[in-house]
Amino acid sequence: MSHNSFGHLFRVTSWGESHGPAIGGVVDGCPPGLQLSEADIQPALDRRRPGQSKYVTQRQEPDQVRILSGVFEGLTTGTPIAFVIDNQDQRSRDYGDIAQTFRPGHADLAYHLKYGVRDYRGGGRSSARETAIRVAAGAIAARVLGGGVRVRGALVQMGADRIDRAAFDWAEVERNPFFCPDPAAVLRWEEMLSAARKAGSSLGAVIEVVAEGVPAGLGAPLYAKLDAEIAGALMGINAVKAVEIGDGFASAALTGEENADQMRMRADGTVEFLSNHAGGILGGISTGQPVVARFVVKPTSSILTPRQSVNRQGEDADVLTRGRHDPCVGLRAVPVGEAMLSCVLADHLLRHRAQNPDAPTVARLPRN
Amino acid sequence: MSHNSFGHLFRVTSWGESHGPAIGGVVDGCPPGLQLSEADIQPALDRRRPGQSKYVTQRQEPDQVRILSGVFEGLTTGTPIAFVIDNQDQRSRDYGDIAQTFRPGHADLAYHLKYGVRDYRGGGRSSARETAIRVAAGAIAARVLGGGVRVRGALVQMGADRIDRAAFDWAEVERNPFFCPDPAAVLRWEEMLSAARKAGSSLGAVIEVVAEGVPAGLGAPLYAKLDAEIAGALMGINAVKAVEIGDGFASAALTGEENADQMRMRADGTVEFLSNHAGGILGGISTGQPVVARFVVKPTSSILTPRQSVNRQGEDADVLTRGRHDPCVGLRAVPVGEAMLSCVLADHLLRHRAQNPDAPTVARLPRN
Amino acid sequence: MSHNSFGHLFRVTSWGESHGPAIGGVVDGCPPGLQLSEADIQPALDRRRPGQSKYVTQRQEPDQVRILSGVFEGLTTGTPIAFVIDNQDQRSRDYGDIAQTFRPGHADLAYHLKYGVRDYRGGGRSSARETAIRVAAGAIAARVLGGGVRVRGALVQMGADRIDRAAFDWAEVERNPFFCPDPAAVLRWEEMLSAARKAGSSLGAVIEVVAEGVPAGLGAPLYAKLDAEIAGALMGINAVKAVEIGDGFASAALTGEENADQMRMRADGTVEFLSNHAGGILGGISTGQPVVARFVVKPTSSILTPRQSVNRQGEDADVLTRGRHDPCVGLRAVPVGEAMLSCVLADHLLRHRAQNPDAPTVARLPRN
Amino acid sequence: MSHNSFGHLFRVTSWGESHGPAIGGVVDGCPPGLQLSEADIQPALDRRRPGQSKYVTQRQEPDQVRILSGVFEGLTTGTPIAFVIDNQDQRSRDYGDIAQTFRPGHADLAYHLKYGVRDYRGGGRSSARETAIRVAAGAIAARVLGGGVRVRGALVQMGADRIDRAAFDWAEVERNPFFCPDPAAVLRWEEMLSAARKAGSSLGAVIEVVAEGVPAGLGAPLYAKLDAEIAGALMGINAVKAVEIGDGFASAALTGEENADQMRMRADGTVEFLSNHAGGILGGISTGQPVVARFVVKPTSSILTPRQSVNRQGEDADVLTRGRHDPCVGLRAVPVGEAMLSCVLADHLLRHRAQNPDAPTVARLPRN
Repeated sequence: MSHNSFGHLFRVTSWGESHGPAIGGVVDGCPPGLQLSEADIQPALDRRRPGQSKYVTQRQEPDQVRILSGVFEGLTTGTPIAFVIDNQDQRSRDYGDIAQTFRPGHADLAYHLKYGVRDYRGGGRSSARETAIRVAAGAIAARVLGGGVRVRGALVQMGADRIDRAAFDWAEVERNPFFCPDPAAVLRWEEMLSAARKAGSSLGAVIEVVAEGVPAGLGAPLYAKLDAEIAGALMGINAVKAVEIGDGFASAALTGEENADQMRMRADGTVEFLSNHAGGILGGISTGQPVVARFVVKPTSSILTPRQSVNRQGEDADVLTRGRHDPCVGLRAVPVGEAMLSCVLADHLLRHRAQNPDAPTVARLPRN
Repeated sequence: MSHNSFGHLFRVTSWGESHGPAIGGVVDGCPPGLQLSEADIQPALDRRRPGQSKYVTQRQEPDQVRILSGVFEGLTTGTPIAFVIDNQDQRSRDYGDIAQTFRPGHADLAYHLKYGVRDYRGGGRSSARETAIRVAAGAIAARVLGGGVRVRGALVQMGADRIDRAAFDWAEVERNPFFCPDPAAVLRWEEMLSAARKAGSSLGAVIEVVAEGVPAGLGAPLYAKLDAEIAGALMGINAVKAVEIGDGFASAALTGEENADQMRMRADGTVEFLSNHAGGILGGISTGQPVVARFVVKPTSSILTPRQSVNRQGEDADVLTRGRHDPCVGLRAVPVGEAMLSCVLADHLLRHRAQNPDAPTVARLPRN
Repeated sequence: MSHNSFGHLFRVTSWGESHGPAIGGVVDGCPPGLQLSEADIQPALDRRRPGQSKYVTQRQEPDQVRILSGVFEGLTTGTPIAFVIDNQDQRSRDYGDIAQTFRPGHADLAYHLKYGVRDYRGGGRSSARETAIRVAAGAIAARVLGGGVRVRGALVQMGADRIDRAAFDWAEVERNPFFCPDPAAVLRWEEMLSAARKAGSSLGAVIEVVAEGVPAGLGAPLYAKLDAEIAGALMGINAVKAVEIGDGFASAALTGEENADQMRMRADGTVEFLSNHAGGILGGISTGQPVVARFVVKPTSSILTPRQSVNRQGEDADVLTRGRHDPCVGLRAVPVGEAMLSCVLADHLLRHRAQNPDAPTVARLPRN
Repeated sequence: MSHNSFGHLFRVTSWGESHGPAIGGVVDGCPPGLQLSEADIQPALDRRRPGQSKYVTQRQEPDQVRILSGVFEGLTTGTPIAFVIDNQDQRSRDYGDIAQTFRPGHADLAYHLKYGVRDYRGGGRSSARETAIRVAAGAIAARVLGGGVRVRGALVQMGADRIDRAAFDWAEVERNPFFCPDPAAVLRWEEMLSAARKAGSSLGAVIEVVAEGVPAGLGAPLYAKLDAEIAGALMGINAVKAVEIGDGFASAALTGEENADQMRMRADGTVEFLSNHAGGILGGISTGQPVVARFVVKPTSSILTPRQSVNRQGEDADVLTRGRHDPCVGLRAVPVGEAMLSCVLADHLLRHRAQNPDAPTVARLPRN
């Protein structure tokens, strides 16, 4: 049963509210004997952390992670790895009116209808702050995947403005506050985002995550399909409204001939794919090609422009959300998307190993 | 653990290969006391069945479902409902070469790498034939949801050609073989599909599924989010490459003001949403608005145009797929999408009821 | 979620009622490439089958199993293995009064209160007939465990009469209709059982199941403990009221010194245990010693002696159960216990392999 | 997947090692709107806490629980309830030799074989200290069950010495350090336990747990049987070797007539059972009678008498366990057993409500 857990053999359970004493997670099922310490997790958290540029929320959360169990003398023990991140910057005064009025685009009304009781401070459980837990879990997943698998993400569209794919440069991603792989787009986006912030508005975004070095054979034919579980994991990130694998939405407009990823044998006996429309997954199972997924983050719902809404008493009530918010939450979703992809892959790696311990991990075929 | 099962409280387990003796499923967790017989399931299967127009595969599978357990004197008993559909039209001769050569775009190579052994006849487990099981399960899910919830689907794009949203007419969907809600598009699609078939090619498609009357409160904040589970369920359908909820991909280009679904109180004390960009889900929880999702089906990979590939022996080998295939598998995915949405909603209805038996099911707020 | 499923990676789903058209099961997660056919399952079913001696029910059910999926050209494919057993001897006339009156010791009243609707014919879902599915699944589990693991069961107590442990002989188990390992007890039990049958009474029993060759390391510290899952699996067999591991109940009366299974090193570098009070499991994890469990089956509740009861209308009503019943259902529980132990071990073998692929499988320690 | 979690809808995840910084748990699935604070949990922990009499370990662990999430303004919110108990009295010096030598009866060797790495300090993950988490979860489960369900436990046997059932007095349980319901047995057990401690020995025990007021209908026919899940939950407690429901082991020696719990109608239309051999469960489903279970705790494995063992280097090595240990761990298992029974019942209450929201909760039948 998944309420606040995901994964099957590499299983992450998350807890915590934005303005409670702490948030935390438990990773259960991590293999023993892996090197792990806070130093492996903190850099991933730091990438996601607010307050790092003028383009994201100015809240100051140090987001220091502490491991409380499951690691002994620097090695994982195979028992649950619990970690906690204390909440420090809890300016509850910013959020007072949320207690009464439901912010459009937010979870406020839905929580109220479902639970009756809700911790409205800073969005409580529905706050994007919770994604820090996913990022931490993703760092542990990366250990499980090992050095041969590389998971990276980039912002490929802000608002309606897409990057130039021909200019895609992974190195550029680390050089700007947008995780943008196209230097020309960076310049445009700086202007767009400043303008949006000044206007009390916000922008959506599209994030691309890519995993290279994924072993062939991860996934399962039906319902535990690798692509289905990636879709669920990415759609489960706050504010995400769409997910695609490989060519995704564009594949509707391809012909069958165009869409087929043709194959040739390489001299070394491995299979070479001549294209990757499929995004590395066929029939729900990885082929060894890079796994490519994209997801869409809607514009931040917390905006300074007033919107029509209703309150707990059943009255019309306009709302505008003061406070320190990201004008484009999509930016900070990049490390979250990387983490979710890592977690799904780690889970499927363990599942594959259980059922098929002797399967080949690269697409190699016998040659005479 | 989900290998070939999905759902938690309304749980579907599927089994069977395209050319084995039968395919079947088990629905576990269905509440007792619901009226159910084969007559409730067969119409849904008939909608999905091949051989009904010249635009779909000409295989003749009567797809007669038989219930083997869980129903007594016309009522569900609360015990597992097993059903089976015998395979009849198993022309294995059509598929002989698939045993050796991996068809591009199909699961052949991925299965071979993962399992070593595979039932290659007609695609075996990866055949779209399995979707009949989902459709049958969806018909049972519809009983659980009851008459107040209406789940419908339509094809809204074929190839690159989209319907005119202004012409959307649900009644039209049942009048043409494309599940198309726009009469003008029907005429264009007939030509497109005939042309694709003659060219030995195939087309992709986009399907929209809508659930009206969904109670507020279904879903859970994190990881069991309603939208995340819908995404996983739809992405798990054969050949699906993208999923979106509400405005989906288009929401990237909206501003925060545009994207906010504003609210006003109705005279009867219920909340009126002034738009539905969110697709009926906020924070992973249904709001009572229609749940709207779309998914993209890639063009049929079985085409008559030869493609470059490799074989089991590790040799280059071209492949073209003879036999009776759908030039646009997206057509028959419409009832499958409806079924998956129904199953996810039924599962979440039971889950919601367990945790929040007294929650309101419509967005009603107290008024003085 | 387990309604009618058990296991996590080797997952069994069961369906069917005693007097419906068939009963069946789905084994999901079985590794590919294992030799499997009906001939591997049928002998196990034949051991459990009624009508084989005068000491068990005289119903004639051929219990012929048919595999419907998951096996191709004699090998498992890694996809779900569905199997079905048709019901043939459905003398519903024997059971007419059960529709109205709740038999003491049976599930009748509990089902009525829980579900409202129930298939009362032959006990419906609660019939011991369902255990055939477990036995079939156990035969598949045995394939997963491989030839190195041997799972056997024996009846070690009938009524209050225990076997002489000093006379325990596994070969004897196959020579008598009681699965009794002590020839002297066989003679006594024949008399006891004949007397019980003539008196319209019934007897309880204790079954011991032993698995030899179990790899060390199966299980997990908490909640997925091997002993906890064995206990759940055995207690879930119809009519079972107690389960013990190793010395079990007797361990309450041991001192700490007596209970400690001391260890010495063997010349070959493996650990020798000087006793097996623990039944092969420490801290929830197998040690490589034989896994030993026992379970208690209450006397058959279907007896010819009238008992006081009530009926659906809320009236007092006496009941006696005519028909063809086992005077000691414990007999036929022996193969069921073996099967459940096999299934739990197969599941844990896969789980262990996922998390600890390189762990030693025997208790071997480094020697200088 | 259950590694370190249990329950399905009321789901408990546990983490932590005996000598790490803390232990903790997450309860996911708790309904919203229940009053809950640390004050509801602490009394249960205090009952289990060490150092309270001379008959238990003299370690001083205040076992102060802190709730970190899922509660807002004194009410549960329906989101995960995380709680933590800091470890304070970590005298690692007592345990130094465990790093090298495997204590008989303990999990040491099994962990070493399974994981390679283990936190040996105080038994690490396998320490009975973890049971504090279960007790805390049980206190939350009690809130879910509500005031109508009363779960209590008692020690009914120490070593080979059983209480006099005729003298059973629940009030006495709270008056002595043994949770013993028989004043005469208390006097004997004081002597027994003092003698065992002086001899460097230890004693086993049998605990009985009883739940009154359990609604009828909890459980499910197969694999999710209430008795099966109780058995798994109790067998999963540290050092438990046997579990029985109702008459349990004794039921083997009953006749069918004796074992049948006969029924009569009461004047108020409810069913009266004339006995409770079944322990309140028939066919895996509660009947509304008290649920009665017993479990056996083996004698403490940590004893001062030297035992033969082996070490990590593969050498023979004797071991005796100094330090502060319970001479009868069974004593402190009483609140743990109560907690596990409460958790299983709470989980099944939610599951029942999901599938059968309108089922009667008492055994009431229509009367004319």
